[in-house]
Amino acid sequence: MPTTHPLIDIHTHLYPPTYLSLLSSRTEIPYLFHPSPTPTDASSTLPTTSPHPRLIILPTDAPPTLPPAQHGRPIDPSYSSVAQKLAFMSTHNIRTSVLSLANPWLDFLPAAEAALWATKVNDEFEAICADSGGRLFAFGCLPVSASADEVCNEIRRLKTLPHIRGVILGTSGLGRGLDDAALDPMWAALERSRTLVFLHPHYGLPNEVFGPRVQEYGHVLPLSLGFPMETTVAFTRMLLSGVFDRFSDLEVLLAHAGGAVPFLAGRVQSCVLHERHFRDAVGNMVRKRRDVWDVLRKNVWLDAVTYGEVATRAAVEAVGRERVLFGTDHPFFPPLDDGAEEWLSVRTNVEAVEGASAGNEETIGMVLGGNAVRLLGLVETVK
Amino acid sequence: MPTTHPLIDIHTHLYPPTYLSLLSSRTEIPYLFHPSPTPTDASSTLPTTSPHPRLIILPTDAPPTLPPAQHGRPIDPSYSSVAQKLAFMSTHNIRTSVLSLANPWLDFLPAAEAALWATKVNDEFEAICADSGGRLFAFGCLPVSASADEVCNEIRRLKTLPHIRGVILGTSGLGRGLDDAALDPMWAALERSRTLVFLHPHYGLPNEVFGPRVQEYGHVLPLSLGFPMETTVAFTRMLLSGVFDRFSDLEVLLAHAGGAVPFLAGRVQSCVLHERHFRDAVGNMVRKRRDVWDVLRKNVWLDAVTYGEVATRAAVEAVGRERVLFGTDHPFFPPLDDGAEEWLSVRTNVEAVEGASAGNEETIGMVLGGNAVRLLGLVETVK
Repeated sequence: MPTTHPLIDIHTHLYPPTYLSLLSSRTEIPYLFHPSPTPTDASSTLPTTSPHPRLIILPTDAPPTLPPAQHGRPIDPSYSSVAQKLAFMSTHNIRTSVLSLANPWLDFLPAAEAALWATKVNDEFEAICADSGGRLFAFGCLPVSASADEVCNEIRRLKTLPHIRGVILGTSGLGRGLDDAALDPMWAALERSRTLVFLHPHYGLPNEVFGPRVQEYGHVLPLSLGFPMETTVAFTRMLLSGVFDRFSDLEVLLAHAGGAVPFLAGRVQSCVLHERHFRDAVGNMVRKRRDVWDVLRKNVWLDAVTYGEVATRAAVEAVGRERVLFGTDHPFFPPLDDGAEEWLSVRTNVEAVEGASAGNEETIGMVLGGNAVRLLGLVETVK
Repeated sequence: MPTTHPLIDIHTHLYPPTYLSLLSSRTEIPYLFHPSPTPTDASSTLPTTSPHPRLIILPTDAPPTLPPAQHGRPIDPSYSSVAQKLAFMSTHNIRTSVLSLANPWLDFLPAAEAALWATKVNDEFEAICADSGGRLFAFGCLPVSASADEVCNEIRRLKTLPHIRGVILGTSGLGRGLDDAALDPMWAALERSRTLVFLHPHYGLPNEVFGPRVQEYGHVLPLSLGFPMETTVAFTRMLLSGVFDRFSDLEVLLAHAGGAVPFLAGRVQSCVLHERHFRDAVGNMVRKRRDVWDVLRKNVWLDAVTYGEVATRAAVEAVGRERVLFGTDHPFFPPLDDGAEEWLSVRTNVEAVEGASAGNEETIGMVLGGNAVRLLGLVETVK
């Protein structure tokens, strides 16, 4: 039985034209490679086909054994077309979407260029949303590699853009992770401006973790395990380094329901309580950290992108039903059957919310849309 | 309110004397280093103290910057003393424990030596249990590096030892993981003999995953995240390689409630269904794999070593309440307050079972002990 609740999608990606042109101008990772058009067959009446550009974001995307036209992944129009995004939303009863740039964001830019590109990309997102008749909002992106002043300026400026509702952030920071004290000015500005941080994985785990047969399984191991484990490690490092003690009002939305954070939070908490490194010689806690569960229930929101009711229910229990928000991860996980209108991945996540809520219509409505409207202030401007 | 159900502990480790002597005889990893006794102070009336031996199991345990007496971790008598195990059980109302060798098991042995050591260690476990008045059973260990015939012989022989109830197994196999087809004779023998496999992590994840500040957090990141992620990757690799299709009656007990398997199972299943690599040109599944949830509910048991009710409830929902089994992970996670009688880690896991069961006494009794009695056939011989 399809849900009758209108959906709000807070996890849906778009590469706007400015960003694709930036990637197309590069020849080092990350970059966009444009294969030559297929040569026209003189005897054919078909038009020349132009193959999709290829996005190469990790060194393993460009193995020397493959021709460049097979490197990385094809970027078809579903990654950049606003029209396709709106059509996808209509097909799935999604009333409003909060767009975000997909990885690798702007993390790779030299310090001197980052702020300018952030302004360009964020302005483009604002323009796209402003033109959508109230159906689109967005998370902005930050010039993480720029000076702390420039990062803080962009955080402030984003609050003046009417359709921007937070920022998306990867896990690498300045290359030394999110437990790097050099990021404190950024956290301070995010906390002060009450800007929601959508924390999203990018690198996954090193391929060696997945063993010698990883290629035989396509993208399954890095996508299904590497991505969530990256998020879990990043959040736990923030916690252990005291980010949530120094910035106790920081608001973080964790992608993919926190990776595995809701499931492993108890183990993390137990390891902290049993770690001599956090004690002095007589056993007193010297590096006091807030309780993991307290952070989860006060500072953390989770999307409901789990593809299963066991995980969605655990997410709801870990942070509370008012802190879990539906998402699709569009345009990733499209149906393999090209004729399918409805996406299996979307239906699976809707059903996971329904199953996890055990028929409680109030909970279902909150997770599928109500929480997003309230948290992100979508009510006033939705037409 | 302490539980009134008698506990059965299926996750509790012991290094018997034979195994410690094997490690003491080695100078390459893994090995046991015996520091010199502290020199007697002539003016003191105190006896000479002998420091605990140090267990070095990973290259990172022996940094050249530290003296050997500080390498690895101290192995105090709680790791090898049956008397201490029984006292711990009495303190915590644990009626029966199913012992297992802790990592690194026998995986490191040359092929020619493995079978003999497996026999010795398993016979010693059998003798310890036989002498316990029905309070101790054990999982045996396998000579994984030996010939397939020797491995299969030991699996068969273990069925003749009255107190052995399965085998404990690490994730490395023959160095290429548990998705290595060379292990098929072992899986076949385990399936045929209906031998439960207790799958347990050992290596965790490479330290680089945890970033440059990993040491500042003591063991928290490798222990709380590396260990469960190793188990999750190992199980998923078995699944993707078709182990559970070829050996559809294989019985596997996953340590630490499956690492993060219950939480990530939906994502794994979705990635398989959306992976072109598993399809032919017209979209039909060519590398058919059993549904993840089907494997979880027919082939998998989970311990309840989660330290939190969110994860324990997810474990129960993923595999069913009759397939989750209480464990302590003793002698790991001792109280840091040396005066404490009751272990916080044990109480946390008991309370997690109680909380996850929402007051259903039948479920609580099953998870805390009833399931183990039934699955492992502990009834007949318990006095």
